Amino acid sequence: MQISELSARTQVPVPTVKYYLREGLLAPGVATSATRAEYDDQHVRRLRLIRALAEFAGLRLDQIRGVLSAVDDEQTSLHDALGSALGLHAPGAAPDDETRARVDALVRRWGWDVSEDSPHRDTLARALASLVSLDHPMPPEMLDLYGAELHRIATAEVESVPTTSREEAVVHAVIGTLLVEPVLSSIRKMAHEEISSRRLAHHAVRTAHRTRD
Amino acid sequence: MQISELSARTQVPVPTVKYYLREGLLAPGVATSATRAEYDDQHVRRLRLIRALAEFAGLRLDQIRGVLSAVDDEQTSLHDALGSALGLHAPGAAPDDETRARVDALVRRWGWDVSEDSPHRDTLARALASLVSLDHPMPPEMLDLYGAELHRIATAEVESVPTTSREEAVVHAVIGTLLVEPVLSSIRKMAHEEISSRRLAHHAVRTAHRTRD
Repeated sequence: MQISELSARTQVPVPTVKYYLREGLLAPGVATSATRAEYDDQHVRRLRLIRALAEFAGLRLDQIRGVLSAVDDEQTSLHDALGSALGLHAPGAAPDDETRARVDALVRRWGWDVSEDSPHRDTLARALASLVSLDHPMPPEMLDLYGAELHRIATAEVESVPTTSREEAVVHAVIGTLLVEPVLSSIRKMAHEEISSRRLAHHAVRTAHRTRD
Repeated sequence: MQISELSARTQVPVPTVKYYLREGLLAPGVATSATRAEYDDQHVRRLRLIRALAEFAGLRLDQIRGVLSAVDDEQTSLHDALGSALGLHAPGAAPDDETRARVDALVRRWGWDVSEDSPHRDTLARALASLVSLDHPMPPEMLDLYGAELHRIATAEVESVPTTSREEAVVHAVIGTLLVEPVLSSIRKMAHEEISSRRLAHHAVRTAHRTRD
């Protein structure tokens, strides 16, 4: 296919495609004339991956380059390639030592294999610390429930990662991890409404009766 | 207590407390001299609620006023008061009709009692539409799994809402709904690492072997 079709199929504008070619993120096509080149499905997959990393994961060019080399290096496990794509964002101040130690103890107790320097340990610690500062500490039983339910969700998600190519697996993981968050968040809030409408509406009726006595 | 202690206990600065008093969001204390007034626990609860609505739910003053009147009106069910606190944000463009109809069908199929004009129906529809536009449509089985797991999570969350006072219930729901999101998100990502390290690491080994053949 020509560059225009490559652009149409990936929804990446032609000037951006040319930029990626110049920067070496995308391998050159096979030249068919002085000004034309032919591209194939490998280019489509690679461009989709670059787009997912740039647009959704919000990575800088040098970070994208790092992920791509992890994807290309067959000696890097797919797991590590995914980690390098997804661990790069999630910035933020370091949490206090006590809360971080609480998170580490939790992960150990759950028996989860999560690297010591995963940024998500810090994100969780910061969130737990802010709940404490608001006088709404998260009860340990609730954290255990979150761990168990989200482990079930994550299992189904990891199972759905395509293993057809390393590029597709990484694209799927980036899109799945980042773009699925609003799906989970909105379903959770609808579930709150559903449960609360059955439970608290009833409670309010009792309160109203008591008030009228 | 005096205004300085009220400020310290709620972490709301004194000038802000005075502003809420002037705006009538907070009832005046009992005057003990020309320049002093005495405040009580009701003021503490009310200020905590205003703070949660302003800082975490990001509501404007007129929206906060609306939530407070829902909290104060015993004829309004607690469920509706919660809805008025949590339904006010989540802005965004209307989703396309087809995806919105898909969400409505889903909620009907699940048998969930969610109001037709809940903003979370639109949020979910927009998220699903963006996944379709990226060639990663969400499979219906996955949505069903999310619905079932998040219903379990939401049940435990709604059960943990304190029923000691309407104010505390709303503060708890606002903090719980909004500030717990980074907790869920970071645990989910750690679960991905945990599961993927066991599964994909193994897969990568097989791929590497095949490459070497």
